Order: sequence, then C-alpha cells, then structure tokens
Amino acid sequence: MADWSTQRTMLAERLAAGRAHAKGKAVAPEALPAFLEAVLRPGDRVCIEGDNQKQADVLAVALAGVDPTRVHDLHMVQSGVVLPAHLDLFDKGIASRLDYSYSGPQSARIARMLFGGKIALGAVHTYLELFARYFIDLTPQVALIAAVSADREGNLYTGPNTEDTPTVVEATSYKSGLVIAQVAEIVDKLPRVDIPGDLVHFVVEAGKPFYVEPLFTRDPAAITETQILTAMLAIKGLYAPYGVRRLNHGIGFNTAAIELILPTFGEKLGLKGKICTHFALNPHPTLIPAIEAGWVEQVHCFGSEVGMEDYVAARPDVFFTGPDGSLRSNRAFSQTAGLYACDLFIGSTLQIDLEGHSSTVTTSRIAGFGGAPNMGSDPRGRRHPSEPWLKAGAEADPESSPALRRGRKLVVQIGETFGEGNASLFVERLDALELADKLKLDLAPVMVYGDDVTHIVTEEGIANLLLCRGKDEREQAIRGVAGYTEIGRARDAGMVEHLRERGVIRRPEDLGIDPLDADRSLLAARSIKDLMLASGGLYRPPSRFRNW
Amino acid sequence: MADWSTQRTMLAERLAAGRAHAKGKAVAPEALPAFLEAVLRPGDRVCIEGDNQKQADVLAVALAGVDPTRVHDLHMVQSGVVLPAHLDLFDKGIASRLDYSYSGPQSARIARMLFGGKIALGAVHTYLELFARYFIDLTPQVALIAAVSADREGNLYTGPNTEDTPTVVEATSYKSGLVIAQVAEIVDKLPRVDIPGDLVHFVVEAGKPFYVEPLFTRDPAAITETQILTAMLAIKGLYAPYGVRRLNHGIGFNTAAIELILPTFGEKLGLKGKICTHFALNPHPTLIPAIEAGWVEQVHCFGSEVGMEDYVAARPDVFFTGPDGSLRSNRAFSQTAGLYACDLFIGSTLQIDLEGHSSTVTTSRIAGFGGAPNMGSDPRGRRHPSEPWLKAGAEADPESSPALRRGRKLVVQIGETFGEGNASLFVERLDALELADKLKLDLAPVMVYGDDVTHIVTEEGIANLLLCRGKDEREQAIRGVAGYTEIGRARDAGMVEHLRERGVIRRPEDLGIDPLDADRSLLAARSIKDLMLASGGLYRPPSRFRNW
Repeated sequence: MADWSTQRTMLAERLAAGRAHAKGKAVAPEALPAFLEAVLRPGDRVCIEGDNQKQADVLAVALAGVDPTRVHDLHMVQSGVVLPAHLDLFDKGIASRLDYSYSGPQSARIARMLFGGKIALGAVHTYLELFARYFIDLTPQVALIAAVSADREGNLYTGPNTEDTPTVVEATSYKSGLVIAQVAEIVDKLPRVDIPGDLVHFVVEAGKPFYVEPLFTRDPAAITETQILTAMLAIKGLYAPYGVRRLNHGIGFNTAAIELILPTFGEKLGLKGKICTHFALNPHPTLIPAIEAGWVEQVHCFGSEVGMEDYVAARPDVFFTGPDGSLRSNRAFSQTAGLYACDLFIGSTLQIDLEGHSSTVTTSRIAGFGGAPNMGSDPRGRRHPSEPWLKAGAEADPESSPALRRGRKLVVQIGETFGEGNASLFVERLDALELADKLKLDLAPVMVYGDDVTHIVTEEGIANLLLCRGKDEREQAIRGVAGYTEIGRARDAGMVEHLRERGVIRRPEDLGIDPLDADRSLLAARSIKDLMLASGGLYRPPSRFRNW
Repeated sequence: MADWSTQRTMLAERLAAGRAHAKGKAVAPEALPAFLEAVLRPGDRVCIEGDNQKQADVLAVALAGVDPTRVHDLHMVQSGVVLPAHLDLFDKGIASRLDYSYSGPQSARIARMLFGGKIALGAVHTYLELFARYFIDLTPQVALIAAVSADREGNLYTGPNTEDTPTVVEATSYKSGLVIAQVAEIVDKLPRVDIPGDLVHFVVEAGKPFYVEPLFTRDPAAITETQILTAMLAIKGLYAPYGVRRLNHGIGFNTAAIELILPTFGEKLGLKGKICTHFALNPHPTLIPAIEAGWVEQVHCFGSEVGMEDYVAARPDVFFTGPDGSLRSNRAFSQTAGLYACDLFIGSTLQIDLEGHSSTVTTSRIAGFGGAPNMGSDPRGRRHPSEPWLKAGAEADPESSPALRRGRKLVVQIGETFGEGNASLFVERLDALELADKLKLDLAPVMVYGDDVTHIVTEEGIANLLLCRGKDEREQAIRGVAGYTEIGRARDAGMVEHLRERGVIRRPEDLGIDPLDADRSLLAARSIKDLMLASGGLYRPPSRFRNW
C-alpha cells in the first residue's frame, strides 16, 4: 500500500532528533551545530530567511559551521544571498544548488563562485516569483527564520520587520517542513502574534536582535542638482499629466529627490492630493517631509527601515501597524500591491540599451533582481481601470477600440546620462549579455525589459516610449535623452527634433522647467538631521548616518 | 497639532460601541443587528468575506437586516457577490458602491441592478488584483469573516477553507480596521491557529458551519466524447511536446476530462512524471485517479472542495496540510503561484472572437472574473526559465536574440465549437462589448485577452497562435478550428490548409489521434461513485452528487 505521509514521517524524525538537543522548543545557541546536523539531511531544500533587509544571521552562521560530511548538497531556496555565511555554505560543500532573488552585497563573490562552478544555479528570481515557487516546486523542507521574540509555545513576534516570514513559514510548515526561528529573547507574553506557534518547531534564543540593513536610507546631503532636475521632470512631466496617485519608488537618490521636492516644487504646482497619495514602499526616511505636509494618505511596506520604527508607530493613519502599535510589513503583499494596485513604478538602473532594456548587472557582479522586475512590468491580468493606466494604454495604441484596449502601467527609468564613476547610463549592448554568455544562462539578467518601459527620464528630458511607432523611433527617442554619451551623440538630430515636436521627447523648457531652478533649496530636507527634525525627533538615524 | 491616529480612535469607538452588545469578544447571533448598527458608520468600506467557495453567510444576512437609516452608503470591497444578501444590501440602500471579483450565481441579478443604477460600480477585478488594492486604496475599515471555530481569545481555526481569510484580516486589522468573525462554535482549544486572536475583535458563535459551494466538483458521468477528444488533443498536442509540469486547470468538464484520462491515455503515452506533476488547483475530485496512480507530486489550493476533506487529509505528501492534519488553502498564495510559478493555464470560456479575446459575459449576466485573468495572463515580471516557457517564447519570436527573448506562459482556451445550448463558441463580436456600451464601462469585461492566448483547442484541432505572423494568420488559425460554426465556415480554406502544413493548426490525425478512440472508457472514473471508490471511500460527495 502506498505511503502518502513520507513527509510527515520525515518531520517526526527531524523533531525527535532535534528534541535531543532542545528543551521543549528551545534550542541553546551553543547547541546549534549539533542540533542542525541532527535535523538536516543531505540534499534538503533549505530556506535561510533574509532579503535586502532583515537576516536570520545567527542561524546562517550556525549552518555554515556544520560538518559537511554530515550535511551536504543542500539546495538553498531563499530571497537573499547577502551574508558571507550564505556563500560559505557553497565553499564548504554544505550547499550545492541555489535559487534566489537578491545578492546586493555579495554580488562580486557570487559571480566569482558561479564562474568557478561552486554553485549550481537554478535561477535568479524576483521576490514574488520565488515566493510563488515555494508553493509549487521549490517548497522548503527546512526554514531558518528570524523574529524579535517568542513565547514558550513558539508564537513569534517579528516587530516591524515582518517581511518574508509569514510566506516562508506558510510554505514550509504547512507542507510538513521544519521551521526553526532565531529570536532575541523568549518572553512570557508577546506584544502581538505575527506567526502562530503551532507552525514553529524550534526556537533559538540568540540574545541579540537579528541583523537588519538600512538599505532604504538616502542622505539628502548627497543629492545632486542634476538629480533634482530629473525629479522636477518626473513630477511635472509624468506624475502631474497622468495623475499618478498609486505608485512605487525604487531605491536611489533620484527617487529620494522626488520624495523631497513634493512639499516644495509639488506644492507650488498645486499637486497635493492629486499625486503620490498611496504607496507600496518601505518607510523611506526621505518620505518624512511629504508625510508631515499631508501629501501621503497610505503606505504599505515590504519591510521596515532602521531608525523609522518610532516614527511609523506615531503615524498609524499612514502606515499598517499592529495591535502593539508597531509596523506590520509584508513583502509578499506589498509586491502584489506593487504589481497589481500601482499605476507607476519608477527606478534607476546602471545600463539602458537602445531597445530600452535595462540592467544592474556588470560583467563581474550579479546583484540579483529583488522586487524591480515584478513592479516594473505591465500586469496583463489587471482588469480595473484608472486614469493614468487608461491614458498610457491609449498613448501606446490609439487606433484600437477603447473597450478592447487595455491600459498600461507606467514604468519609468530615471537617471543621469553619466552615472557613478562617470559611466554612461546608455550602452549599445548590456553587460548582462556578456554575463549570460559566460555563465551559459538561458536568459540575460535583464532587470526591466524594453517593452515594459514607458518612459526614460534624464537631465536632458523625458522620452515617452509609448508614443514611439516602431523600433527606429524608439531608438532615436532613447538617443534623444542620452545627452553627451556616445549613444546620445550618435543621434539623428532631425528625427530627434521631429520626435520632440510630436511630444515624444520633452525637454525641461518644453515643460516650463528652468534647469537653473534645480537647486538644493528645493529639498524639503537637506540632511539626515533635517529628516530627524522634520519627524519631530521620532526618526532615529543609524549612527553611520549621523555626522552631528 | 495634526492627529495621526484618527483610525485608531475610530477603532476604539467601534470597539466600545460593540462591547455594549458583547460578552468579551463574543456577540450572540440575536444581538447581531444592534451590534452591527453600533459598530458601523455610513460610508464605511466593508468586506464581507466570500468568494466562489466559502461565505460569511450569517454575517452577510445580518448586515442586510440593519436599519438603512442608521447604516447606509457602505462601499463593499469583496471577492464575491454571491449570496442574495450581498445584493439586498444595495436594494435596501445599506450599501451603494461596489468593488468585487466574482458574482457567479448572482450574475443575472447584478446585471439588472447595474443597469438600474442601484449599484455604483468601481471595477470588476481578478482576485489577486482586488487583494492588492486592499493594501493600497481599497483597504476595508470593517471585515466580516468566516471560520470554523474560535477560542476565548479570538484565535481562529478555518479548517480546510482558509481561502481569503488571512488576506482580508491582514489588510483590515493592521490598518486599524474592525474584524468580526462568524464561527460555528467557540471552543477551549483550537486544532490549529489560522488567524491570531489579537487581530480579531469580535466573534459570533453562529451554531452552524459557514456556507460553502462545491463549485469544483464535476460529475464524470456528464463528460462527453467530444470533451474527451479535446482532452486527448491537449495532452498529446500541448502538455507532451511542451513538457508541462507546473500548471493550473480552470473549472469545467474539458479540464476534468484531462484529469481523468491522465492515468489511461497519458499512461499509454508514457507521460507519467513528465507532465502534470505540480498544480495550483483546488482539490478537484476528478484529480483523485491521477493522484492515486502517482502522477501528482504536489498541489497548492486556493480553497477546499466539499467532500474532499478526509481524502486531502490522508494525502499530506501531495497537499498542504496543517498540524491538525487538514488542508491549509490560501487564495492569495495560490493565485500568486498560478501567476508566476505555473507554465500553463487552461480553461474554457463562453465566447472567443477573431482576435482570440474571450469572455464569459453575456448581455444579461455579469459573472465577474474570479482568478482566470490573473492565471491566464503572461507574467512579464517572470525571470526564471523553464522548458515549456522558453519553447513558447521561441515560437512567438524566433528572430530575436535568445538571451534577450523572454519565454511565454502557455494560455490555452479549450472547448467544443458548439457549447451549451448549441451556442457557437466563436463569435464576430463579444457580448462583453455590448455590455460595456450599455453600462458605459471603460473596459469591456474580457476574461483573457487575445494577445495572452497561445492556443485554442476544439474537437477540430489545436490552433497555435504563437506561430501566427500577423492578424490575418491569427484570424484564419481561429477560424480553422471553429468547425461548422459560422466563423468556421467562413474560413479561407487555402490559407487554413497552409497554416496546417506549417503546424500552426494541428488536426487530431496530425497528432496520431483517432477521434473514434475518444471513448468514455478512457475515463479513469466514469461517475462520482467511481471517484469515491478510487479514493478508497475517503472522498465523500455532497448529497446532490449522489445518485446511488
């Protein structure tokens, strides 16, 4: 007779083996290596929780310390490959296969290891896509997760950094997988229950908080006047005419500049309440002035941001908060919101080619995707109309019958023609293609595809790709905002001028913007200290951002 | 000084007003009308939980019984408009605005009420899209939800029908909204905790289970030989050559036939383990024979299915189950899985036009979208390759550089050329367009758009739209499988023959399928009783499906 409970039996074995190293659900940190060797099996699919923000760091380090003769060939399925320990696993042979999303700080080392054949790569995903596969073919058999505290029954409190935890636990625990949580402390009563205890099998009291990276903090002091100019163009040339109320901002100084000139430049244009009212966004410190000025009705967050905890807790009308008063974030839902409920995604990138494909990959670094490809794509399953969405759809396809014409999400790439290290933002060929060749990838790691991009904004102007008819127009529209880069200088001047007459390209002067007005005085906060003051002292910047 | 806690204050007021009608968190059913009048405010955004399966029916009926002079102009934001009470709200003026997804059984009445101006319609969404908006601009202020049982702290046990509950509760409760749950009983200890009690404000002990519709049960006895033929075509002409392992099946007899011939026809073709191993799917009774024959590795479910509870609980290697042993479903995650982790969606429809647009709308019925538009769309944010996805992408765009070419999701429409009531499946113009005119909708209610559809399967053959170059080829490919319908008879015979030579159209004989083999003896179960027997008596069909 067929056995339909092999996974349950395996779980029972893991639980029995683990209990030999535990008191109830509690595992002492010093017992971790022996405990992990007892509960893990070679070839297990394992998720170490961690994304671009919070990390189950204590469990990651402990896993990297197990005996590779006992635990080997693990298949890691996780959002982030971020900590050195995540890659040590592969160097030591503890893990061999990898499916992941984001590897910002490890982008150089992971590229070297992929070249060296140390890692059998499944695929690089966007977050929501990897979560989706957790429920289909990449379900973790063991999950190592992170929370703030646990009670004796194993109920977990995540605090503001809930992030991926509910998703990882749901996929693992309900498929007879083992869930092990690190917490700073075990307490009698939790401030709130983020994860029910019956889904959590073991708890490690680490005695310290999990690691969190303040990835979404941008110091206003570092924002340039060119970035302010691109921000003015975005607001007056895109947000205002389309009437963009529901949106997501990618990481970066360009989008931080947009946030910081809403209460000044945006206010002068009379746009308050008409744009930027609802966000899928982490609690960016640079959003504080706009929130305080009453611009922002609601923000749903993927994760939290270090130092923003008290500010968020004091603004529950804007943020999602729990019965304990602190933020409840949720990456899966915020990514879903960014995909289906937002009319605009805007972000910066490293390279854009002549078809509008963009990538953050260089030949020696693989940063992964994170959330941008999901939010920077046109959701073809969307069925609810909105003004910006319908307008963009009509621009792209004016000939078709309106009732059968879908709208389009606005997907905007913003940047300076010459970026970091004076490298051209515009290239003939993406470095991603070279990388795909070298690593024999089926697909080049393109962040946002050209057919999803609707606008490119640089200091030279806005290229509206929705209005381009055919490949040539598209190429010249891109060249037409590429400034003095090689790509820009090789433009067909007549065609670019013609595109400008048609409004496909709009220069600052076409929008009534004087580049000389792009002054740092437009920034509602010019420093981290200003942000702190704007928050009434509620924002507590991490020490590395304090210089006073 | 600005008040940033108006929502918290409102919640405190609602809680205080509600407590006057409650004992702790418990509200007696007979106290419901007065209780609801006390906690609700005119204009509130309210979600009554309910989709195409489970319903918070007791709370829906109670809400329809409140005094409209006290509670009026509610804005209903909910997956399903399914119960008569859901529409009574609008007839009585208790509610005035509506944003929703699915209205199967109320499709005629909702159409009449929309024509009559009784409902101010926001939009008809697909489920995941509506969930997305719960976190951005359609956040419920009050949610009326349904569970199996609660404990004294308000922790909830949903049993197998978890469905939308975690999503609705997360959006409402973490945004300072009020959550009221109906349960069959209040108990001392729950079998498992699906919703932590600190998110649930009041509990109504209804004394009976919530209503559930067995929507995904198809009686094999009603499957026709034509449907078996289309199933053979789908398996041999699509699943096999593309190697489709991760997929979703829409509701209907055509897909039920596919499920039922896997262990017979599929087995003979040697496809076991090569196709149909991972599903995002409700626990369809017609999947039992394939599961028992070892075809199916894993199924993640949107909801449960009446009568399948014990069978699912006895097959935990296949299904996601909780520590109590019963199914854990989750609509949001299963829709996400259907979107991003599946390579194929196949479903039937009522009408297909010459561009391949399809719709289930008729001029007098608005059934809503449910999940099909989400799963039947090409997810452009997808970044992980798979064989079926890459092959479909290459067919659509053979000229472009492989590394920059995305794959395509296989989106298949399957049906008989003449459907129910002998109506043609193929039409010149969708009824959805007439409806959009009449109701002055911005968008016609198209279920799956032509540019997302990759294949159409009828008894006449398979049209591969990926291989069509241009509008004319597409039209003739569709006409070429439209049989003796008017659309089919108006084909350009020469062009259709040419398309067949190119493999754009494939007839049964081109695939080595003899239509005479499409016999009911191929069905691994030919009746509901057969399904029950195949399950070893674990499947307990609802009485309406029992005729023995």
